[in-house]
Amino acid sequence: MPKTVQFYFDFISPYAYLASQRIDEIAGRHGRVVDWCPVLLGITMFKVMGVKAVPETPLKGAYAAHDWPRFARYLGLPVAPGANIHLPPLPPLRGFVWLKDRDPILAARYARTIFRAHWGEGRDMSSLGALLAEAQTLGIDGGALQSAIDSDHVKSRLREQVDAAITAGVFGCPTFVIDGEMFWGADRLDQVDQWLARGGW
Amino acid sequence: MPKTVQFYFDFISPYAYLASQRIDEIAGRHGRVVDWCPVLLGITMFKVMGVKAVPETPLKGAYAAHDWPRFARYLGLPVAPGANIHLPPLPPLRGFVWLKDRDPILAARYARTIFRAHWGEGRDMSSLGALLAEAQTLGIDGGALQSAIDSDHVKSRLREQVDAAITAGVFGCPTFVIDGEMFWGADRLDQVDQWLARGGW
Repeated sequence: MPKTVQFYFDFISPYAYLASQRIDEIAGRHGRVVDWCPVLLGITMFKVMGVKAVPETPLKGAYAAHDWPRFARYLGLPVAPGANIHLPPLPPLRGFVWLKDRDPILAARYARTIFRAHWGEGRDMSSLGALLAEAQTLGIDGGALQSAIDSDHVKSRLREQVDAAITAGVFGCPTFVIDGEMFWGADRLDQVDQWLARGGW
Repeated sequence: MPKTVQFYFDFISPYAYLASQRIDEIAGRHGRVVDWCPVLLGITMFKVMGVKAVPETPLKGAYAAHDWPRFARYLGLPVAPGANIHLPPLPPLRGFVWLKDRDPILAARYARTIFRAHWGEGRDMSSLGALLAEAQTLGIDGGALQSAIDSDHVKSRLREQVDAAITAGVFGCPTFVIDGEMFWGADRLDQVDQWLARGGW
């Protein structure tokens, strides 16, 4: 079994989008696989910390709206600056959780695809129809995905995984964990790469 | 007159310490000088945003306590992981404001020195005696500095400069502004360097 890099993400974060398009390549270069782990940034974590969502934070919200598209261009990634920042994360995350229990590699492909469609290409994933259509391009059964999104079992699997992330100290996303060492932020991809290359410093 | 890079800092931020030891070299490589600009992160800006200070934020506080010393080692900077995170920023910032009105180059040297003494070498700058002693190593008159720190004129100069920073959209530190383009975070030093090299992207 190859060692992993844990990657914590929520679809509502455009910075998680940036990381989602790079982390598998970085980990792979160092012989690791990425363990994609869902979090609920706005719904759970910001409440634990007692902070507001970034778009609603004075000054910081305006900065982030300008910054993330600029950061995407810096990384050479496609960018839809007008992407809907109020994406409801539960449907696509529940879909992810259901897929991961069956096929983690397909689940990661699904997550990368949903991120890119929404934040990179401007197809709004808030609509269930758009989400199912995007998943179907990967050969995922739309009806089964829709049932999974509505399933109490999947809802509770997601809650368990978010609780586990908080217990592990995760508070934002993207967050990367390498052998227990945590890095927060898309702007830490270089440090993640270097930590893997050098085994720490 | 060479063009500038504005660098917004508060002595209470260990991330501003990291940037303070690198920004002049980066700007200088691209023919720019750094305009050091004081902000009051905890006292003013966090209130405008309605957020808590990082050390008091659940989960994030514990992360930052581990992260900033690791980041300092990554940059090859000296680090005092036990440095007092409750440094009262008003005395050293008022001293800076007073010095900058007289000699901006000396003021920047003073700021770099205070940052390094506190966060890099563990000499606690909360004590006025320690602050004055550190300033005196740079040839600054301790008595004049102490009077300046107590002066109503200097207090109001600092308030004006912090208000101007907020009007400019600054919400955190370290923040860098290049020809109106803002970058937030010590982890953006690479993007600052690249923006200066390429003239944007």
